[in-house]
Amino acid sequence: MRSNYIVIEGLEGAGKTTARNVVVDTLKELGIEEMVFTREPGGTVLAEKLRSLVLDIKSVGDEVISDKAEVLMFYAARVQLVDTVIKPALAEGRWVIGDRHDLSTQAYQGGGRGIDQTMLATLRDAVLGDFRPNLTLYLDVTPAVGLKRARARGELDRIEQESLDFFNRTRARYLELAAQDSSIRTIDATQSLEEVTRSIRETVTAWVQEQQA
Amino acid sequence: MRSNYIVIEGLEGAGKTTARNVVVDTLKELGIEEMVFTREPGGTVLAEKLRSLVLDIKSVGDEVISDKAEVLMFYAARVQLVDTVIKPALAEGRWVIGDRHDLSTQAYQGGGRGIDQTMLATLRDAVLGDFRPNLTLYLDVTPAVGLKRARARGELDRIEQESLDFFNRTRARYLELAAQDSSIRTIDATQSLEEVTRSIRETVTAWVQEQQA
Repeated sequence: MRSNYIVIEGLEGAGKTTARNVVVDTLKELGIEEMVFTREPGGTVLAEKLRSLVLDIKSVGDEVISDKAEVLMFYAARVQLVDTVIKPALAEGRWVIGDRHDLSTQAYQGGGRGIDQTMLATLRDAVLGDFRPNLTLYLDVTPAVGLKRARARGELDRIEQESLDFFNRTRARYLELAAQDSSIRTIDATQSLEEVTRSIRETVTAWVQEQQA
Repeated sequence: MRSNYIVIEGLEGAGKTTARNVVVDTLKELGIEEMVFTREPGGTVLAEKLRSLVLDIKSVGDEVISDKAEVLMFYAARVQLVDTVIKPALAEGRWVIGDRHDLSTQAYQGGGRGIDQTMLATLRDAVLGDFRPNLTLYLDVTPAVGLKRARARGELDRIEQESLDFFNRTRARYLELAAQDSSIRTIDATQSLEEVTRSIRETVTAWVQEQQA
């Protein structure tokens, strides 16, 4: 079976790390062993430097990063990761499991920050062409649940410190985009750990079997 | 008279710094005192950090920065500079004198690196809207002359170390774009210092008088 790019998406505290482990275990049970892991923004030397710049406002003093500059830095990091890591891995037959990808930009910057959706789609198409994940698991939680879990983990970064309204708008855009795109599967991540694990396992197994059919 | 944004463009060693001083002297003689200076990439805390990343390959180890990532970093720095420095200065009635702006991206990345022109124009319009310099002075030199002058100044950065072919393509695109846009005035910068100075002085004086007419 050809290699695929599977992305895990969701608000902070949705359980992306746990979900990744379930995806990996499920793929291994299906006989898929060669996997590469990415996270965005980041995953290359340049992209990690951009991640530090964009997520840690302290590094630019009191200067406010403009919304468009933020988006462009995310895209710079993303295209560097796609060109230097993701596409080469897929070409070598390895599966790529990503912690966030373009859907995060569409949801956080488009939904949360209210950046023009057409501009974001134009940027995405200009930068990435038609490159897309084969499957995206969107872990849906309410912001209240997600932020409570994220806070329990420790300090929040610049984006995680946004208002609850910001996260409500971000979630609404996630749900809207997931409803329009059959390659995005929504997982109810407010369920118990056992139920979330079962949902992910079933979704991934069914999807892989569809690909093999 | 309303404030204007004047940009100085050209290959390395074209004499941009000298030209800037001539522009400043000329504007002062015309009674324009309130000026702000910018350089690209750079000019804000964030933009200078992006400048360091993109111009100094050593900072990312052996990783090669993809052409698209480079362009996006330039645009991130540019929009941050436009939004936080240039537009506010113009709104306060100050003139802005820029060392490079978007024309550099069109010439270096579009011409030199061969990045798709349509993509670059799409990016520019998506990021900057219709914001453009009021006047651009393009200092035209052959790459041989420019690089000889630049080398005499010391170490060359990553972009300055490109091949002569790269600079020939960059110059060709500069000339092509200047021919299409009446807000870009080409100055023959292979002339003697006295002649270049006179050309710039005459061009700027005539342009300012046109604006006042």
